[in-house]
Amino acid sequence: MTTQFVYAFGPAGADGDASMKALLGGKGANLAEMAKLGLPVPPGFTLTTEVCTRFYAQGRTYPEGLKEAVAEALKGLERATGKAFGDGANPLLLSVRSGARASMPGMMDTVLNLGLNDETAAGLAAATGDKRFAYDSYRRFIQMYSHVVLGVDPGVFEDALGALKDERGFAYDTELSGEDWAEVVGLYKTALARKQGAPFPTDPMDQLWGAVSAVFASWMNDRAKVYRRLHDIPESWGTAVNVQAMVFGNLGEDCATGVAFTRDPSTGAKRFFGEYLINAQGEDVVAGIRTPKPLTRAAREAMGDKGLSLEEAMPGVFGELTAAYQKLETHYRDMQDVEFTVERGRLFMLQTRAGKRTTRAALKIAVDMAEEGLISRDEAVLRIDPASLDQLLHPTIAAGAARDILVTGLPASPGAAVGKVVFDSDEAEQWAARGEAVILVREETSPEDIHGMHAAKAIVTARGGMTSHAAVVARGMGRPCVCGATDLRIDRAAETLTVRGRVVAKGDVITVDGAAGQVLLGAVEMSEPALTGEFAALMSWADGARKLKVRANADSPEDAVSALKFGAEGVGLCRTEHMFFAPERIAAVREMILAERAEARVAALAKLLPFQRADFIGMFKVMGARPVTIRLLDPPLHEFLPHTEAECADVAAATGIDAKALLARARALAEVNPMLGFRGCRLAIVYPEIYEMQARAIFEAAGEVQAETGVVPAIEIMVPFVVTAGELAFIRARIAAVAAAAGTEAGTEAGTDAGTDAGTGLAYQVGTMIELPRAALRAGEIAAEADFFSFGTNDLTQSALGLSRDDSGAFLARYVELGLFAKDPFVSLDQAGVGELVEIAVARGRGAKAGLKLGLCGEHGGEPASVAFCHRVGLDYVSCSPFRVPIARLAAAHAALQSTPDGQGSLASTA
Amino acid sequence: MTTQFVYAFGPAGADGDASMKALLGGKGANLAEMAKLGLPVPPGFTLTTEVCTRFYAQGRTYPEGLKEAVAEALKGLERATGKAFGDGANPLLLSVRSGARASMPGMMDTVLNLGLNDETAAGLAAATGDKRFAYDSYRRFIQMYSHVVLGVDPGVFEDALGALKDERGFAYDTELSGEDWAEVVGLYKTALARKQGAPFPTDPMDQLWGAVSAVFASWMNDRAKVYRRLHDIPESWGTAVNVQAMVFGNLGEDCATGVAFTRDPSTGAKRFFGEYLINAQGEDVVAGIRTPKPLTRAAREAMGDKGLSLEEAMPGVFGELTAAYQKLETHYRDMQDVEFTVERGRLFMLQTRAGKRTTRAALKIAVDMAEEGLISRDEAVLRIDPASLDQLLHPTIAAGAARDILVTGLPASPGAAVGKVVFDSDEAEQWAARGEAVILVREETSPEDIHGMHAAKAIVTARGGMTSHAAVVARGMGRPCVCGATDLRIDRAAETLTVRGRVVAKGDVITVDGAAGQVLLGAVEMSEPALTGEFAALMSWADGARKLKVRANADSPEDAVSALKFGAEGVGLCRTEHMFFAPERIAAVREMILAERAEARVAALAKLLPFQRADFIGMFKVMGARPVTIRLLDPPLHEFLPHTEAECADVAAATGIDAKALLARARALAEVNPMLGFRGCRLAIVYPEIYEMQARAIFEAAGEVQAETGVVPAIEIMVPFVVTAGELAFIRARIAAVAAAAGTEAGTEAGTDAGTDAGTGLAYQVGTMIELPRAALRAGEIAAEADFFSFGTNDLTQSALGLSRDDSGAFLARYVELGLFAKDPFVSLDQAGVGELVEIAVARGRGAKAGLKLGLCGEHGGEPASVAFCHRVGLDYVSCSPFRVPIARLAAAHAALQSTPDGQGSLASTA
Repeated sequence: MTTQFVYAFGPAGADGDASMKALLGGKGANLAEMAKLGLPVPPGFTLTTEVCTRFYAQGRTYPEGLKEAVAEALKGLERATGKAFGDGANPLLLSVRSGARASMPGMMDTVLNLGLNDETAAGLAAATGDKRFAYDSYRRFIQMYSHVVLGVDPGVFEDALGALKDERGFAYDTELSGEDWAEVVGLYKTALARKQGAPFPTDPMDQLWGAVSAVFASWMNDRAKVYRRLHDIPESWGTAVNVQAMVFGNLGEDCATGVAFTRDPSTGAKRFFGEYLINAQGEDVVAGIRTPKPLTRAAREAMGDKGLSLEEAMPGVFGELTAAYQKLETHYRDMQDVEFTVERGRLFMLQTRAGKRTTRAALKIAVDMAEEGLISRDEAVLRIDPASLDQLLHPTIAAGAARDILVTGLPASPGAAVGKVVFDSDEAEQWAARGEAVILVREETSPEDIHGMHAAKAIVTARGGMTSHAAVVARGMGRPCVCGATDLRIDRAAETLTVRGRVVAKGDVITVDGAAGQVLLGAVEMSEPALTGEFAALMSWADGARKLKVRANADSPEDAVSALKFGAEGVGLCRTEHMFFAPERIAAVREMILAERAEARVAALAKLLPFQRADFIGMFKVMGARPVTIRLLDPPLHEFLPHTEAECADVAAATGIDAKALLARARALAEVNPMLGFRGCRLAIVYPEIYEMQARAIFEAAGEVQAETGVVPAIEIMVPFVVTAGELAFIRARIAAVAAAAGTEAGTEAGTDAGTDAGTGLAYQVGTMIELPRAALRAGEIAAEADFFSFGTNDLTQSALGLSRDDSGAFLARYVELGLFAKDPFVSLDQAGVGELVEIAVARGRGAKAGLKLGLCGEHGGEPASVAFCHRVGLDYVSCSPFRVPIARLAAAHAALQSTPDGQGSLASTA
Repeated sequence: MTTQFVYAFGPAGADGDASMKALLGGKGANLAEMAKLGLPVPPGFTLTTEVCTRFYAQGRTYPEGLKEAVAEALKGLERATGKAFGDGANPLLLSVRSGARASMPGMMDTVLNLGLNDETAAGLAAATGDKRFAYDSYRRFIQMYSHVVLGVDPGVFEDALGALKDERGFAYDTELSGEDWAEVVGLYKTALARKQGAPFPTDPMDQLWGAVSAVFASWMNDRAKVYRRLHDIPESWGTAVNVQAMVFGNLGEDCATGVAFTRDPSTGAKRFFGEYLINAQGEDVVAGIRTPKPLTRAAREAMGDKGLSLEEAMPGVFGELTAAYQKLETHYRDMQDVEFTVERGRLFMLQTRAGKRTTRAALKIAVDMAEEGLISRDEAVLRIDPASLDQLLHPTIAAGAARDILVTGLPASPGAAVGKVVFDSDEAEQWAARGEAVILVREETSPEDIHGMHAAKAIVTARGGMTSHAAVVARGMGRPCVCGATDLRIDRAAETLTVRGRVVAKGDVITVDGAAGQVLLGAVEMSEPALTGEFAALMSWADGARKLKVRANADSPEDAVSALKFGAEGVGLCRTEHMFFAPERIAAVREMILAERAEARVAALAKLLPFQRADFIGMFKVMGARPVTIRLLDPPLHEFLPHTEAECADVAAATGIDAKALLARARALAEVNPMLGFRGCRLAIVYPEIYEMQARAIFEAAGEVQAETGVVPAIEIMVPFVVTAGELAFIRARIAAVAAAAGTEAGTEAGTDAGTDAGTGLAYQVGTMIELPRAALRAGEIAAEADFFSFGTNDLTQSALGLSRDDSGAFLARYVELGLFAKDPFVSLDQAGVGELVEIAVARGRGAKAGLKLGLCGEHGGEPASVAFCHRVGLDYVSCSPFRVPIARLAAAHAALQSTPDGQGSLASTA
């Protein structure tokens, strides 16, 4: 059986159908499907994507037999339309359009009105009785064909037309008569011949093959390549080419053209929605020269429009269209975006496809359709792109609110907030404590600003990129953030900020739109996120479908409250060091760091103990019996010290600590590569008393909360930066000793060494981050000492790829641009590299300890593709920032609903 | 069959032999062997290491049947000696000594003269007719037993003895009579009873079991644990205990004791060598109270000693001893260290073991014995510890030279050198250029000091550890280096250094002993390394045995010359960036970095091209047809820029580059984690012109050298820091384009794309470092683009373990101390972690490309255990610093000679 390269469709039915998108492209498959459904589709045929693939494989030549198949299909078209291609009396005109498997709007080329030459144009004028229409179509065809197929700049034709209009004294195209347009055609042909040194091709068959080749070639244009990369469309798919009889909506007042959505694409409301124009071509609806009218009378009245809706102007056609759209929506079981043309009172359906919609609309449509019984609840869940939820989860600037843009920067963390400008983190905390909404504005932020960032409603920085400290922390906290607003100047002395002469003083109100990267003057009206209604319904269906549990990263009781609001089932990462930076604690932290002997260190740590205990009490009270994973101190100690001589002097003055000693210690602790330095459990190997204090704070807090509330906290103590089983054993033994002592003191049966018995009294688990390649490789041995693993894929990405998140800005964009990395590996897990380490650790860890609990914490935990990976490799949970919890829940549901029984993943698909 | 716990030996033969070291320990096995050989060994028996193992496994109790077996063996001893244990008339006295499988001198406990009490002491006095001897022995026994078994501080007894001597007016122990010693015994017993509240145990059997238990217990004392860790002795081995009849060298002038080596342990010369004392106990020879005499007349005469040698004093005994040592050396096929005692004219052999020797002696002995036919050449090769060669490969301070130590620091790089102090790298280069030997003295060094370090004979720094920049680079260059000489103060303005008041000015001569970590005032006499004679012979045998090739890391023609001298078979790593720091080049490098557009960058690079080409010409000329692996630019660009405002101003003044622009660029390029930053091939992805210039310099240099010498350089171009196959493909394509262009220009057939054809014209290979975990994991894909892999295990260790070499000083020592790392992973490859990544990459790389050439470059390439690993996993070569090449050659030979057919390694042995 020879390969079929050409699939016909028309009133008599179709060779293909909607299931054949891979072969016919989306447009071709849907045209065939509509034809099969008996809808009035202008007849045509589709050259398959297989032709495209062969076209490129064979050095831009066509497979044998294609010419004959096209000629055959063309004959069918002539029969169906009663017109003849190239015929001077009753010419058949064609449209030639691309149509890939996935929609790539505007990325590839189209040629309309194909088949016109001097002879057929005259025939068209005669047949339609409209010379102006015929020659306007002809000159449009020359212009479009020259541009798309011959690569001639349209400016050449604009110039010729402009010269003629000047000569005649015309201001608008509409002033040109049929004669004028015929003259313009002549001018165009002359201009083209001069430009390319060859005449315009007059043979319609030459025109057809020129256009087909141009459309296939457009698959590889730069626009299309970029679009494919951005949308993960494989190059190997290729495009189909659809050749279709032209129909015209611009042959008079009984003609029209329009686009319609079967439901409202903005709100999702179940009402027919769209626009049309009488006596117009499709491009006129889009071009905005004339204002289209609503389709329905109800819509027209709601808008107060004086014209006629299609329902009123052409009630018969409207009835046909209504029947068609209802048929299509029911048939496709999704909201459709349709294009139609009315040629002399006759309705033609030109296209149908799943309609684009806002996330809000998508939610409503999916939930409504499930409740209408049109789709299942699982299908409804799968209809929502998890990543798209992001826009629903933050307050946003109200639609249509006026924006006075002060400065623009990078859209580093979504959401919007209004507040008073402050320039100092301590001040931010103080103002927030007395109930003010504040926006923290800094040159850049550092770990010492954490408390200020937490206190602020939003953060703005003058320096730093999408992965700067401010950006990463703000996203983690769910604070809107604009970074790298380079036009912004801060005068710390005057306590003002200035942008090109506009001055904003401390305490002035601004609005931050993190999604748009804008800082706006004054208080702009906001919309709060609604987590109820369709959102709540769909999320509950998603929760029913998913296997992965979803936790949140939360460093404070406030974060934990937010986490619960977004549906987190526990805290997967509580970073204790963020608790160290608050002004009333940092002095004790520094005293501890400056201590030369263990006793002095222990004394300083004793001062921190009540703070830590209070932190954990707050956290445990919010989380109740849900698991809370507390990561013990991780960053290198120098992060807690001032760095410059001046800063040291300031701190010395404020605290009485010797400035020289402070500077000396800061210098001694300074590191060339702090990411790979004296941090994590290494601190506790050298100074065991640090983790001992933290463990004690945890056990005492748990005891107190249990005594007060009767609820037993589910404690998971996480040891960071482990590379050997010995480290974990060393620290685990010390935690067990502290637990035993705390148990005695508190009069409860504090944790056993195994720690996993949640019977009476305080139980706890000890586990580790798997965040370095060696830890992944030695996971079998480490598992023997661990009750759980949590994959710290941020650091695992940094170490496996030798890629510092802080420093990768200089080249990462170029890597993604060149396709060396498919995506930023800090955003979407590098499954082929880092992912294999995770898989190794899962296999070895569970091999050594069957019930080992496995999770992932870090930015990847809220990214859909990474969540799908976690599901596939069998993790128990993911943990992400509170605002991403719904995304993770939905992504986990997708992964569960889409996973095939053999669990085969796509690991091999990225190099 | 019940387990035999006790093995007897004596005049009638022995239960065990020398092959049973694991069970009987070294000492016990050799005593048994000597007994079997018919040598006069005092009879005794050995409690096996199995007893020790069970002792610990069973909570410090003995296995059933042991008591009975010991009693039985004791009876045999009584029969053999004709004495009786605990007998008042003719008492048998025993020594109880540890004896592990590997020698652990002084680490465990010994009890002598066991069996003495009031009754047997009287009997001993009567039997020997020497009351003084008997009671002196008795009091020594009480003191030793109390210390070793009862844990009583010997000071208690010293005090009692001191009081008695004061009372009697005695100055020396020798003044005490037998009566006095008997009185001392009484005082000792009183002191002991007062101290521990219980009398001294008088029952000899109680004494015996007390001593045996103490010796077994000493296996777990802190000294022994530390020693085992330092010498890689597993705890599970346990120790044996040897119980042996005492013989006495101190019963009169017909008695003696001594130690002997069958060959000279310092030089290896084939002559009997040792010392003895008349009328003395073994400990007296060691204690240094009396000066021992040489054994042979020849030695005595050579020393001009007036006393008598053993040969002269006791010719009969000497004859017996000569026969015994010759028998032992021939039997053991190695130089022996023997201990003997002469009791009343009768020779007893107390111990034999392989004698410790200097590396120089070890070489001579191994080569001599092979030439004597005593051992094979392979055995000779295996007799030399590869690591020990280090001390032969550098000039050293002449033995016995007077040392005026100015300051002590860390022994960062071995060897010694004399030179004039300079404090500046440029000055070091200038002075060296005019023929001065200089020592570069710096607070610390940075990459900008490379040229000064290269020009210097040795390097001294006030700051930095064993893995500081100075230490690592100095070892790589083979320059002696003392780091972290913290007492050293440098006054840059005065151009002096000061150590506790002693001032050394620029130009003053000092001597550096890198092996000892000493800086000495003035010029001290030196010995040059001799690479001829036995060294050359043994290395040629090693070369015949090994499979791994050995290359050197060499960054300059001088390094390459040194590499060849040490037997390198190629250059495995030529770091091109070291060539960028020379003063006449750095300006162009900075201009390139400051360039804002590609054209300006290309123009700056064009200035560097002649320098690079000249570098490669020099390198190719030295190396001839041997392979040279050239690594393209690797470090981040900020390493080439000044960092502080002041430095920028200096550079600006010197070069005319704008200071502000320089500082701005330096700040923009500064990185939080430069190890994980914008470096390696990432530079070439963003700025392809850098590698293009380097490739051009390589091809032009090769063409020129080939034209001049007729020898075709074997070029291997190495791309650093690759994590994806795409990076290598991108860069490989650009190198191929440069090669094609260079080939045309030079009129030669420069490399094909495959690059592996070494036919006519220039051929080249392109490969990559595997130095990041992801690269190891994706080695299969990367191999498709690579002609070779070179494992960069320095960076692979940093990334796999998350361990910055520059920053690990703060905790690495503690990790090794706690046994969390068996060894510093930068010194000896972490086979269980980093090693598995290497194995994965080997398997996947060769799986994708069977003939893929595999090597390792970096510090591990010269470390014997790591070299053995490389052999085992099937690498083709290792590359290390020139001075370590002989170590690698010998280690590779060991690996080849020791490898078992199944190739099973010890990967699983370290966690």
